[in-house]
Amino acid sequence: MTSFEALLATRTRHMEASAIREILKVATSPGVVSLAGGLPAEESFPLELMEQLTGSVLSKYGAKALQYDASEGFGPLREALVGHLAARGVYTETGGIVVFSGSQGVLDAIGKILISPGDLIAVEAPTYLGALQAFNPYEPEYVQVETDEDGLVPDALEAVLSAQRVKLVYLVPTFQNPTGRTMPLERRQAVANILRTHGALLVEDDPYSDLRYSGQRLPPIKALAPENVAYVSTLSKTFAPGLRIGFCVAPAVIQHWMVIARQGVDLHTSTFGQALAAEYIGGGYLERQIPRIVELYRPRQQAMLEALARHLPEDFRWTHPEGGMFVWVRGPQGLDAERLYAKTVAKGVAFVPGKFFFVRQEDGLSTLRMNFTAADPETIDRAVGVIGSVIAEELAAAR
Amino acid sequence: MTSFEALLATRTRHMEASAIREILKVATSPGVVSLAGGLPAEESFPLELMEQLTGSVLSKYGAKALQYDASEGFGPLREALVGHLAARGVYTETGGIVVFSGSQGVLDAIGKILISPGDLIAVEAPTYLGALQAFNPYEPEYVQVETDEDGLVPDALEAVLSAQRVKLVYLVPTFQNPTGRTMPLERRQAVANILRTHGALLVEDDPYSDLRYSGQRLPPIKALAPENVAYVSTLSKTFAPGLRIGFCVAPAVIQHWMVIARQGVDLHTSTFGQALAAEYIGGGYLERQIPRIVELYRPRQQAMLEALARHLPEDFRWTHPEGGMFVWVRGPQGLDAERLYAKTVAKGVAFVPGKFFFVRQEDGLSTLRMNFTAADPETIDRAVGVIGSVIAEELAAAR
Repeated sequence: MTSFEALLATRTRHMEASAIREILKVATSPGVVSLAGGLPAEESFPLELMEQLTGSVLSKYGAKALQYDASEGFGPLREALVGHLAARGVYTETGGIVVFSGSQGVLDAIGKILISPGDLIAVEAPTYLGALQAFNPYEPEYVQVETDEDGLVPDALEAVLSAQRVKLVYLVPTFQNPTGRTMPLERRQAVANILRTHGALLVEDDPYSDLRYSGQRLPPIKALAPENVAYVSTLSKTFAPGLRIGFCVAPAVIQHWMVIARQGVDLHTSTFGQALAAEYIGGGYLERQIPRIVELYRPRQQAMLEALARHLPEDFRWTHPEGGMFVWVRGPQGLDAERLYAKTVAKGVAFVPGKFFFVRQEDGLSTLRMNFTAADPETIDRAVGVIGSVIAEELAAAR
Repeated sequence: MTSFEALLATRTRHMEASAIREILKVATSPGVVSLAGGLPAEESFPLELMEQLTGSVLSKYGAKALQYDASEGFGPLREALVGHLAARGVYTETGGIVVFSGSQGVLDAIGKILISPGDLIAVEAPTYLGALQAFNPYEPEYVQVETDEDGLVPDALEAVLSAQRVKLVYLVPTFQNPTGRTMPLERRQAVANILRTHGALLVEDDPYSDLRYSGQRLPPIKALAPENVAYVSTLSKTFAPGLRIGFCVAPAVIQHWMVIARQGVDLHTSTFGQALAAEYIGGGYLERQIPRIVELYRPRQQAMLEALARHLPEDFRWTHPEGGMFVWVRGPQGLDAERLYAKTVAKGVAFVPGKFFFVRQEDGLSTLRMNFTAADPETIDRAVGVIGSVIAEELAAAR
């Protein structure tokens, strides 16, 4: 039998199965409490609306909702997104919005048209693993830019852009996956200035801003430096991730080429799914759903923070995000979070060892990403309790 | 203002806007009869079933139909496809099927994991343009393999594989887009032997086999050389193209890497769309719909063939496919089909100049791809009449 291993393209050297997928396979086993996934809660989906939305789509569009459609996106959805984006500080018209198959689709198109092998991409440490998976097949190199509890440190970005030729900057400035961190306004303004000074391009990935439990909405960096930012967002956390609806507002040249790229990838995003999204947004349902989602998640985040305080030793630290889906935990120097994971999952509790979110994994050996959206408060407390007891056992064994 | 043109990746040199998209933009203008698109007829969609299918999905799966799902595909759809594929000569089990976002999604994944820059891909002349658009970003070279009225000439493939190092072969063996040609059984067997002898990989793209108006179903080459073929098909022509549902049955190593690749591209295909497809196939509706589609298209193809005989001069030739969506016309030496297009579209009739389907466009200057699915018989005759009259005018002007 022929082994086709020898046919693999050279770029596959930079591609690997997602370590997180492997964790998630275990995490979704029966009997395992998963604080590992990035799943929105099923209770957050507008399930009871679906029959009505489908009926609207079929009566408004009929067979057109089943037909091939434009690569730029379904017209009524692009129109509905104009107001959606304006409310969030991104001002554009219908023609400035392109719909993709999830944020992932946006990131793949960006990588395909901008990253030549060897190009340098500036990222936070840690950063969203899915972005690395989108970019890696295009064979970039990465430079990690210093972050702290307020996210990216602007001076560090300035230093990187001055010292090295960087193709693009990739940031998740609000309720970042995995840390939950948010860049305050002054830092966003500083980054906007840096981008303009260097003529640099920022890919601003903004999936979670609507999941805000306290504090005030902040302008995206796109609002502060519109011509230097490709702004990326999604309906995965405020409508339904299974529909795969993402979108991008980017400078014209970049948009032009992204559309060419995506033609070769999937022709266009599901017409039917886009039509459902157009009805959901256009009918005002999204804006009504967001407070419900916030009310669902706020107590879960609260439970997570209380559980961490209750069950983890003194020398553990964690973020206190104002929104999003994750809390980021850092243990003391020497903690091996992956070893800890192996022990907790044997006791039925999963989280994601944070090292997988670092371009340089050794920078994150003692970190953990904890999701709170997919479990109720009691379960969260119990699960964090298990993690705490395993840690205590390890400490006792070490003495 | 920064121009980001300078940031474009080197691979974009090999990417271009689809010439056919530009034609289609014109072709879909009001008042233009389009024989240009590759659109299935809207009347072929099971529109009246959609409310019921949606209801089934929501009641069977509820929120799961809206949630993130496995990269390999939605379980019930993979299961339903086992029987669907077996009826078509492709024998595999659930785990051997991966669902993608259209055939396009399959072709992009294949290109990403197999094509290193400079690799040689063997294709028919002409071939499906969408495949070239999927592969081009990965920077292959192409070798055109000789074809005739029965499709690929096996001896010519043998010669190519013996003389050159070819990474993969790409064929559309049944009712090919754009020519409508079909490889007979003996040629399929010959190609199967050639693949085995050379340890070569064939990507067999099979979107149209169910659209058969006469003659007998043929086994796919996948049935004859299963270990040397990545078999690709879709529900775009027998359910709904707007749902973006394609699938692949490939050797294990290739499937493994395709799944890794697609994670970075779109995570997974729309859960909701896949669930609809599972209901459509599992409920027996697809098999009931196919004869209706055939009855809709057969008279349209007949009308096209009769119109060509009625309106085109003696020195034009065309294919007589037993199925599919297209008829391929070749004019006399010296005909410039693109110039002809400019004149016919000015009179409200569009087709696709066939050169765009050739890797070496100069091989197809006198060819035309004519679609018959998207117009009724009277319209087809009228439109072909316009083309014929423009040709006659050109001939008269030339004297």
